[in-house]
Amino acid sequence: MSEIFVGIDLGGTNIKIGCFDSDLRVIRKTAEPTQADMGPKVVIDKMAQTTEKLLAQAGLSLQQVAAAGVGTPGPAKYKEGIIIQSTNMPKFKDVPISRMLGEKLGKTVVLENDATAACWGEYAVGAGKGVDNMAFFTLGTGIGGGIINNGKLLQGCGDNAAELGHTILYPNGRQCNCGQRGCVETYASASSTAKRASEALEAGEQSSLREVLEKQGEITCKDVYEHLAAGDTLAKRITDETAEAIAIACINVLHTVEPQRIVFAGGMIAAGEPLLNRIRYYFKEHIWSLKAETVDICFANLGEDAGIIGAAALALQAHRQSKM
Amino acid sequence: MSEIFVGIDLGGTNIKIGCFDSDLRVIRKTAEPTQADMGPKVVIDKMAQTTEKLLAQAGLSLQQVAAAGVGTPGPAKYKEGIIIQSTNMPKFKDVPISRMLGEKLGKTVVLENDATAACWGEYAVGAGKGVDNMAFFTLGTGIGGGIINNGKLLQGCGDNAAELGHTILYPNGRQCNCGQRGCVETYASASSTAKRASEALEAGEQSSLREVLEKQGEITCKDVYEHLAAGDTLAKRITDETAEAIAIACINVLHTVEPQRIVFAGGMIAAGEPLLNRIRYYFKEHIWSLKAETVDICFANLGEDAGIIGAAALALQAHRQSKM
Repeated sequence: MSEIFVGIDLGGTNIKIGCFDSDLRVIRKTAEPTQADMGPKVVIDKMAQTTEKLLAQAGLSLQQVAAAGVGTPGPAKYKEGIIIQSTNMPKFKDVPISRMLGEKLGKTVVLENDATAACWGEYAVGAGKGVDNMAFFTLGTGIGGGIINNGKLLQGCGDNAAELGHTILYPNGRQCNCGQRGCVETYASASSTAKRASEALEAGEQSSLREVLEKQGEITCKDVYEHLAAGDTLAKRITDETAEAIAIACINVLHTVEPQRIVFAGGMIAAGEPLLNRIRYYFKEHIWSLKAETVDICFANLGEDAGIIGAAALALQAHRQSKM
Repeated sequence: MSEIFVGIDLGGTNIKIGCFDSDLRVIRKTAEPTQADMGPKVVIDKMAQTTEKLLAQAGLSLQQVAAAGVGTPGPAKYKEGIIIQSTNMPKFKDVPISRMLGEKLGKTVVLENDATAACWGEYAVGAGKGVDNMAFFTLGTGIGGGIINNGKLLQGCGDNAAELGHTILYPNGRQCNCGQRGCVETYASASSTAKRASEALEAGEQSSLREVLEKQGEITCKDVYEHLAAGDTLAKRITDETAEAIAIACINVLHTVEPQRIVFAGGMIAAGEPLLNRIRYYFKEHIWSLKAETVDICFANLGEDAGIIGAAALALQAHRQSKM
């Protein structure tokens, strides 16, 4: 029986866990609510128990697992396996998760930024396959990033490179949860798209979204794209602002690391072609004329599994390196 | 006799040439006006003749030269040795400079972006020595950039990475020569500093710089910093805008490639501590609070020779690799 690799995506809302063979084919996967308010010890216990249960359901045992990988939002000391802090899991401060989970499982556990793990998954077996230089954005509640440079993850001096959602797009602009103002995340994320639409309605703008707000008490990013499809003018302006912000973030990552391909993942890509086409439009609008740029701007293709695939792929890589 | 390496910095105004030993110690150097309007053939002839003359003056011959390196502003196909286009040398279009100069000298000639070459020089023997991850900005007429990732130049998929002056800082902001709007270069360069001061005077603002404008017909960046030192309010506002733009560019490069050190070179660093202190101040003002950042922000220490040292260092590296 070949070696098994476990990939875990630890988010503020859910823990996703998958077990994979050494070709990174998923054998079985599951998801559980994180219950981050119970604190790190309880959450880590649950991760270990859920992993064992998942393996048993797949007819596998912990003995067959070679290594596990965990992806989680930063900032963290990834190489040391320590979560420094987490916006969506306030009780997680200086948590040595690799050691704690590693002891429970009796396996090596590698830690990586969740977006970086998903980036590595897309690079290994998804939309980035065959490309050596790639940039990656997750467009969700927040915006995460990943960069592949010459076939390797670009990690920076302290493993916190590629925080592309926190590059500043509009100096002194909208307040970000990270403490900065004007971050890409505050203009280009799914939650920002919903929030800017709500603010516009509160300011009295006309829109078919008003009925949604009155009925549901809130607007989601999905609502905004649905009303765009139905021809709503406000939804058009708001989603254009989102696409323009993403396009400028693409230009900035192009002029910094020059990827051959820029890949978008995360919940907002469900908006489909109308989003992708506007990103490409604004990219052309804003890009320099000094030389023609051929960077390929596209969507991820592993869907929600990119995070667990990438975490498993990083576990596999670490395991192979440890045997060298 | 040890091998000799030639480093050339081809700019719109001057060609600087130096010959170096294999420890990158300068043996002799010179500068000539570029006369870019004479076209590439004449300029390349002059580069070859000046190199031979320089070697002769140092008691050396072309036979002792192992390789030469040329740094020049992009965009270019650096690996192929072809200048695509140049803002300050309009007659240089698709010029295969490595081949043309290589044939004249009978040597391998490597081509690199001028800022990248200077970055490599500072990394090899200057302000970046001992650091594995570094970002580099040249603050001159324009703004060039360089990035060292894990001890290697970050070159991107087409060798045009680290165009840090052309990341967008203020979307739809000031027009840049590159065709984009709101580039870092249009707020943070020496020429932008002078230009924004002139514009403020034209708009009627009070300043001791008005007398300079009336006497000289123009304002230089140096003038602005001199009047800052003398307590002028307008000079204070303009130089603060410059420092703030540079600081935000630092935050963006930090969140993208996470260097351990950010090094500034170019004419504007003659402004000294008042500039550096304000960059550090605005960096602290704008940086996130999610984790403490310890990136070291400092000035280059090779002065105007960084470009020719770096070009020679790249020639040396290429020469060693070709023998491996």
